[in-house]
This record gives sequence, C-alpha cells and structure tokens, in this order.
Amino acid sequence: MKKIEHIGIAVKNLSASNDLFAKLFGKQHYKVESVEREGVQTSFFMMGDVKVELVESTNETSAIAKFIEKRSEGIHHIAFAVDDIYAEIKRLKEEGFQLLNEEPLSGADNKLICFLHPKCTNGVLVEICMGRKSE
Amino acid sequence: MKKIEHIGIAVKNLSASNDLFAKLFGKQHYKVESVEREGVQTSFFMMGDVKVELVESTNETSAIAKFIEKRSEGIHHIAFAVDDIYAEIKRLKEEGFQLLNEEPLSGADNKLICFLHPKCTNGVLVEICMGRKSE
Repeated sequence: MKKIEHIGIAVKNLSASNDLFAKLFGKQHYKVESVEREGVQTSFFMMGDVKVELVESTNETSAIAKFIEKRSEGIHHIAFAVDDIYAEIKRLKEEGFQLLNEEPLSGADNKLICFLHPKCTNGVLVEICMGRKSE
Repeated sequence: MKKIEHIGIAVKNLSASNDLFAKLFGKQHYKVESVEREGVQTSFFMMGDVKVELVESTNETSAIAKFIEKRSEGIHHIAFAVDDIYAEIKRLKEEGFQLLNEEPLSGADNKLICFLHPKCTNGVLVEICMGRKSE
C-alpha cells in the first residue's frame, strides 16, 4: 500500500452534506458520481492529495443504508492506493486478512476496488484501490 | 484547511495493533508517543504524506475508552492541517460549527489541536491541527 487515496463518509443527504463540507473545508466538491452497482451517489472534495468522498445511499438495501441504520452518519472507510490490486489481494490473503470480495469490483472514480473485512482490521473498513487503465 | 494530516484509529491493544497494521501496510510504525493529558498512548505510520495514528487508552475515563466502550474499535477522527489554528477556529465559529475546545490544546506530535463537535459535521469527529514552533 502506498498512500491514502480517499476517505469515505456516509451521509444521509448528499446535497446538504456538500454544503456542510464546503463550509468546513472552505472549498466546493469537484465532482458527483453515481455507482449504480453499489446503490450510491458520491461527491468528492480534494484535500491535499487525498480525496474526501461523501456517500449517500440511493437504495435502501445498500451497504451505506445499512451502515447509517446501524451507526448513523460518519466515517465509513479508508481507501489505500495500490499499484497492483491483484498482487496486493494475494499478499493480504497470505498475511491472513479476510477480503469481502476476492475479485476486484468497479468503484467510483474509475477504480478497481476491494474491501477487507473490518473484523480483521480493528473495526476499520479498509478499501484498496487501483486506477483502471483507459480502454 | 489544507490537507489531511492524520487519521486516528481507536484500538484496544496498541502493541497487537502495531503488528496488525504493519502487516496490513507492509511497513512498521515509526514512533510511539504518550499524551498524558488525554490518557492515551499513540503510534504513527506514514502512508504517503498522511499519518495513521493508532490510539490506545491508558485511562478508563479517556475519550478513547468511552469511544471503544460505545462503538468498539475503529476510525475515531480525521485531522486536517491548518496554517493558523486561531484564524481557523474563528472562521469555523463564524460558519456555525461547534467546537469541543475553543482554545487549542496540546496534542501528540508537537501539535496544537482543536476538535469540532461531530453532531455538526455529519457524525465525523474532525480535528484541526497546527505544528507548534520550536521554543
């Protein structure tokens, strides 16, 4: 793992939270993106070279809807950039970490992503992500 | 706010978590530090130019002890670097944010720090921090 790529924050209302975080950060979000497979709408702020991703559920069975129901709004995950997600998945499995998906999935921001089970990472939902090459 | 300075993760056992995160990140923590005023022991990993701070309570009445009792281990706060913490406190108050401490406190890593109340930031415990000049 090289660096923190983004931090994901679960929010109930993306529009209201965009305004709130714009006031907090003193800058606007730079894009909004839907990820239909995950049932979410996202927006991104750039803070230094790390993104803050606000995530609103658009589907009551999404992971974000369940997170908010259980824990309310707040920090949802930390994503770390990797050069080779396949090699990193192999390394993490060999180290004994449990993956929520063993095959990379399509995430927001044109990334391939994989999540680790928070029970093996001190309650932290860790994502690893790799930029997808343009096809 | 300029950039994410660190992410704080509440852990039950710092020594065990240092080993766990070393496996996860593929690198060791680079320092350990006690913050007696807060009743915590911390360790730091560098990921890109953002620190991951593991925080263990050394005092059963500390904020970290209460967090773990209520929510178990996990991501505790995000800290943003600011150039002038006094000006940023003033700006945030004017924007309507509620501060947990209106006067900066001494934090780990030779910083002056201030926390915002998570009820005004979508459940996210936000810290702002400024490096202290050497005396």
